[in-house]
Amino acid sequence: MRKIKKIAVMTSGGDSPGMNAAIRSVVRACAYYRTECVGIYRGYQGMIEGDMIPLTARSVNNIVHKGGTILKSARSKDFRTKEGRKKAYENLKENNIDALVVIGGDGSFTGGVVFNKEYNFPIIGIPGTIDNDIFGTTHTLGYDTALNTAVDAIDKIRDTASSHNRLFFVEVMGRDAGFIALNAGVGAGAEEILIPEEDLGLDRLLESLKKSRRAGKSSSIVVVSEGDKTGRNVFELADYVEENLEDYEVRVSVLGHMQRGGTPSCFDRVLASRMGVKAVELLIDGKTNLMVGLQNNEIQTIDLEKAIKGQNDINRELLRVSDIMTT
Amino acid sequence: MRKIKKIAVMTSGGDSPGMNAAIRSVVRACAYYRTECVGIYRGYQGMIEGDMIPLTARSVNNIVHKGGTILKSARSKDFRTKEGRKKAYENLKENNIDALVVIGGDGSFTGGVVFNKEYNFPIIGIPGTIDNDIFGTTHTLGYDTALNTAVDAIDKIRDTASSHNRLFFVEVMGRDAGFIALNAGVGAGAEEILIPEEDLGLDRLLESLKKSRRAGKSSSIVVVSEGDKTGRNVFELADYVEENLEDYEVRVSVLGHMQRGGTPSCFDRVLASRMGVKAVELLIDGKTNLMVGLQNNEIQTIDLEKAIKGQNDINRELLRVSDIMTT
Amino acid sequence: MRKIKKIAVMTSGGDSPGMNAAIRSVVRACAYYRTECVGIYRGYQGMIEGDMIPLTARSVNNIVHKGGTILKSARSKDFRTKEGRKKAYENLKENNIDALVVIGGDGSFTGGVVFNKEYNFPIIGIPGTIDNDIFGTTHTLGYDTALNTAVDAIDKIRDTASSHNRLFFVEVMGRDAGFIALNAGVGAGAEEILIPEEDLGLDRLLESLKKSRRAGKSSSIVVVSEGDKTGRNVFELADYVEENLEDYEVRVSVLGHMQRGGTPSCFDRVLASRMGVKAVELLIDGKTNLMVGLQNNEIQTIDLEKAIKGQNDINRELLRVSDIMTT
Amino acid sequence: MRKIKKIAVMTSGGDSPGMNAAIRSVVRACAYYRTECVGIYRGYQGMIEGDMIPLTARSVNNIVHKGGTILKSARSKDFRTKEGRKKAYENLKENNIDALVVIGGDGSFTGGVVFNKEYNFPIIGIPGTIDNDIFGTTHTLGYDTALNTAVDAIDKIRDTASSHNRLFFVEVMGRDAGFIALNAGVGAGAEEILIPEEDLGLDRLLESLKKSRRAGKSSSIVVVSEGDKTGRNVFELADYVEENLEDYEVRVSVLGHMQRGGTPSCFDRVLASRMGVKAVELLIDGKTNLMVGLQNNEIQTIDLEKAIKGQNDINRELLRVSDIMTT
Repeated sequence: MRKIKKIAVMTSGGDSPGMNAAIRSVVRACAYYRTECVGIYRGYQGMIEGDMIPLTARSVNNIVHKGGTILKSARSKDFRTKEGRKKAYENLKENNIDALVVIGGDGSFTGGVVFNKEYNFPIIGIPGTIDNDIFGTTHTLGYDTALNTAVDAIDKIRDTASSHNRLFFVEVMGRDAGFIALNAGVGAGAEEILIPEEDLGLDRLLESLKKSRRAGKSSSIVVVSEGDKTGRNVFELADYVEENLEDYEVRVSVLGHMQRGGTPSCFDRVLASRMGVKAVELLIDGKTNLMVGLQNNEIQTIDLEKAIKGQNDINRELLRVSDIMTT
Repeated sequence: MRKIKKIAVMTSGGDSPGMNAAIRSVVRACAYYRTECVGIYRGYQGMIEGDMIPLTARSVNNIVHKGGTILKSARSKDFRTKEGRKKAYENLKENNIDALVVIGGDGSFTGGVVFNKEYNFPIIGIPGTIDNDIFGTTHTLGYDTALNTAVDAIDKIRDTASSHNRLFFVEVMGRDAGFIALNAGVGAGAEEILIPEEDLGLDRLLESLKKSRRAGKSSSIVVVSEGDKTGRNVFELADYVEENLEDYEVRVSVLGHMQRGGTPSCFDRVLASRMGVKAVELLIDGKTNLMVGLQNNEIQTIDLEKAIKGQNDINRELLRVSDIMTT
Repeated sequence: MRKIKKIAVMTSGGDSPGMNAAIRSVVRACAYYRTECVGIYRGYQGMIEGDMIPLTARSVNNIVHKGGTILKSARSKDFRTKEGRKKAYENLKENNIDALVVIGGDGSFTGGVVFNKEYNFPIIGIPGTIDNDIFGTTHTLGYDTALNTAVDAIDKIRDTASSHNRLFFVEVMGRDAGFIALNAGVGAGAEEILIPEEDLGLDRLLESLKKSRRAGKSSSIVVVSEGDKTGRNVFELADYVEENLEDYEVRVSVLGHMQRGGTPSCFDRVLASRMGVKAVELLIDGKTNLMVGLQNNEIQTIDLEKAIKGQNDINRELLRVSDIMTT
Repeated sequence: MRKIKKIAVMTSGGDSPGMNAAIRSVVRACAYYRTECVGIYRGYQGMIEGDMIPLTARSVNNIVHKGGTILKSARSKDFRTKEGRKKAYENLKENNIDALVVIGGDGSFTGGVVFNKEYNFPIIGIPGTIDNDIFGTTHTLGYDTALNTAVDAIDKIRDTASSHNRLFFVEVMGRDAGFIALNAGVGAGAEEILIPEEDLGLDRLLESLKKSRRAGKSSSIVVVSEGDKTGRNVFELADYVEENLEDYEVRVSVLGHMQRGGTPSCFDRVLASRMGVKAVELLIDGKTNLMVGLQNNEIQTIDLEKAIKGQNDINRELLRVSDIMTT
């Protein structure tokens, strides 16, 4: 086992709140363990282009609360090619970098695993995405913040929905996973929640909205995940419902990219701090191909490949709670 | 001049943050002046349907900070008919209501003026709309809050825009007036601002974005008012720019109805409190057909008809400031 | 086992964000299971005074996002007497109440256990307190929100601290437990964190601040738990440090009761919804003397007496992370 | 009139939200008018020590939304001496600086006027303080943000006050001026507001609280300005009231320095942008000894000496509104 003298950190794929806190943690942990630290800009693309900067404990002052990522992020087509990865490896060697912390999602981890196989390069993953769709951690970095952003926006929308007795379809992020929709929906007291994991069916949706109206509710919020299974996008869905429901004025709101930004919640900042330290300690201990994750409120590790292949199931208990809440 | 013994208050048209604070103020001012107060639900429609409730000082406890309107709001087609207005008048008489405070926008005031002409019924308007498009007041109720909501959302979008070197088109409310776009754009540090009052032209927009990129800016925000003059909606605009600009990944975010909701800012709560008191005092003093407004930080009045016909010009100085900020 | 036909719910002790969401959940779960529900005002005191109200699914509309508790809360001296509890029992019987959900902390649960022993009355506890000092759950209701409130306030204080090169002592809540201080301190990037569980010693504090200054930090935040072990209150502490440190202008900020209020975070709303349902289901299933809690992100139960006697240890790993972050 | 080729900008005295937006505006306006710009750190003290940095349009990217001041602020004793000012002047000359924009309050402007008299050095003031106690502008920079911060905190405190039927004394900033207390008090729906401009008298306070209790209010908020005229600090005041009122549990919360920090509101960002441009244009036009201010929603100027000597009167109408609101 070679000694780790210099660690690189980067953010890759879609950004999420808490990435800066994680970068800061990796940098500070390196300083604590007297290991050099380098930041790579724009993920794998910056690695290929040799776009890097040395990072000291002071260079990450005052970023723990910032949204986005000071190292920028990107998706890299070049890294999918053997040539791209070769160039990336050469840049790492040239800069005497011994190990890598990748903050990102599934796609970023897949790239990391391929790279490790080809070059036996030590790599640890930190799950950073608002979608919470990574196996091996109860919470990904940024997910908690995105939930608060979504709920805050839906609270505002409910103000105007109630004032006008309207029905709102609110689309939240989550192409393949309904975690944001389900949790933000329950948190915001939505009347219905449409998620990719479950096909409610349009008829049941109509029935449920009619029942809610009969029960005296004059306004309603339906939270829809980007990737819901109705086969219609949120606008078509709204049109369909408006045509088939009497007396409901229907509106659509797509929350969009604001869910990716903003000051991270305390939860995400603390999680980022814990994960960053663990990632550095794992590398120094000679570990590789692991992802750090939260399990039972403790920092644990899981094989990167398992993290990629596994899938977080939607919480059935919470689905049931959601049904009961809309009694 | 008949003595005013009972005043009705209602909210009409699109809701805006601060309407509840204004209702509370009208009710408390009535209590202070030992005048009865009645709330009418759903604006003119509720007036026609006789949907009313007596309001005491205590019934408006704990609403000063709430978005939306506890009296609900609506647009009423029936009130545009002679029969509708007759029914409304009869309901007012039947309930011994002597005067009316209408919290709403242009459309609501127009209805009020017509009603006053037909039935000589005392009426005072409070300008409540997020669009700030009412003549005779520097600030409408809810406008300040909507600006903060928009700027807060754009701040979040900028986090992710900067992380990915993207160009975002952010649509804010304002069909006929660019006040939200111009102020939120300057406040959020947008690179370009498109408003209905000015046709920048697509070529100049492209030129400006190219210049900004040359100057080293890797991400940009363009704030677009709903009613901008490019003749394209925000999605078409984004497509056009993406086709004609190299190296820019373009995204769109439509902030939508969340701008109408949320806890009102301190400014809007204070403004609402001042306007509500003034409206009641005017009615008690035998005045009618006036709108209360803010001028030079003081509560003033203006003829309702002038308020309807006049138009707030966009602030040319602020347009210039906006240009200078994007140097 | 008698059939549970009517369940009472109350909030007791210090209030915390999410209590309303928990009340709503208990009420809606009762409705779902066709069980009657009654709200008791002001905790055990209201039980003694017979201060109750029937609650239906509709009566808890629009409270999921509200801070405080619509049922009010109180500490009751009378309930510590046999007579008080007798009166309370008689009121429950008179109102045909079969079981009780208590939302509160240790003290409230102790009262519940005593009551259950005397009258064999079914009781389930929901841990509601911002302090997170209840055994058997990784998160109490309101704790996550309080952390965000604290971190948000410290972020603001850091702005002015950095502008003036000042040292701030910020006191957060937590008389017996340092959870808020430790997590908010790590989340806000504090230079030092003083908690009841650990006596850092004043000398080490001074040494650490001097080191931080030497490392080039011109401003610093020290987060102090109410119950820290220095034997001085936060003002005395600040005086001591100002006397013994050169070149530091010291200021104190006591965050105080605002930490108990505010709109609950999504996390707390979802947690409340899950706990409320579980509490009702346990009672219907004939269970008693249990507290619902979160373990490994799942709703679990624990004996109320264990919950009262046990103590949550401070997270040693997080203490270590905190040290590393201030490298 | 000499041509202005290089302008310096600095922040001085207490910091306030929006100062960074004002710095950015001065810098961008200089770039627009092809004038060099220099930032001076720590106000007059940095001027004396020659602590400066060139600022280009790009160096103020991404600061419009930041609290605090990137140029730091300070109070300088040395600048009160002839020697200090001489050294400051020499540093300005040495760096070819032709004019100065001072962002600060009364004290900072007084220093500027003295300096101008001694060295005939062009100087323009931008009113930056949360206290709104500067004559010649309806709004100082940071005041609007501080109001929102205060109201947001009081909203949270009210949650817990209502839950426990408590009386809270909340101290807000404002040593000599009650603007924050009066506006935040009205905005937050406080039952009483104590400000330096008016001595309510303790007896009237007690009477008013008793009346409020009789009227059925079970909880109350009293907002107190730092410099109120009761002759007691907020803790003594609370003790006095607790001793003399039955049935009220009294608590105190001192909001403190968090009021100076935080992300500026849209209003403050726009105001800062407008003021910064005007300040630069005035200097380029050969003007000096003026303060830019907001009057009737337009940017105006006033003699610096008048701004220092004048005093903003508390708004009597708003005092009256406040009385009516607590009916």
